[in-house]
Amino acid sequence: VLGLKQSPRCTVRPRRMVVVRAEGQTINSEIRKNEEKVVDAVVITELSKPLTAYCRCWRSGTFPLCDGSHVKHNKATGDNVGPLLLKKQ
Amino acid sequence: VLGLKQSPRCTVRPRRMVVVRAEGQTINSEIRKNEEKVVDAVVITELSKPLTAYCRCWRSGTFPLCDGSHVKHNKATGDNVGPLLLKKQ
Ligand code: FES
Ligand code: FES
Repeated sequence: VLGLKQSPRCTVRPRRMVVVRAEGQTINSEIRKNEEKVVDAVVITELSKPLTAYCRCWRSGTFPLCDGSHVKHNKATGDNVGPLLLKKQ
Repeated sequence: VLGLKQSPRCTVRPRRMVVVRAEGQTINSEIRKNEEKVVDAVVITELSKPLTAYCRCWRSGTFPLCDGSHVKHNKATGDNVGPLLLKKQ
């Protein structure tokens, strides 16, 4: 009698659909994540320099001030964000 | 002669690894995308109200001002971003 070989076991795992929505992403992954909402107040009479840049990219090492990190973020992602400039006049 | 059946064809598609990095995402998907970098300047002597909130979530309908849209963004994503408040004193 001819010994029939078993056919090799074939397991195809189901494919998962991965949906990535940019809108569903957090903006801030690092800064003061222990706070429920990161709000900063600037008393404008206390500003000393004629021009102060405040971060809106959430990547600054000196947040809430801008340290130029938006440049790296924009380059890496194709984004176009930048700071808010406070001018004394 | 015994006719041997061919074993069924088994095609296992290679799995792709999907890596999602929050860092690689844009922050701003809507506002002034025609500008290379969205920078706004505020001349602080021209602020009329005692308190003005400036958007840092890039979701405001009145950007660069905050219109409260950060609340919806935070709820939808689990984020914790909020505005910069400019106070007259
Ligand atoms: S470092 Fe964030 S806007 Fe410049
Ligand atoms: S709407 Fe953007 S910080 Fe409030």
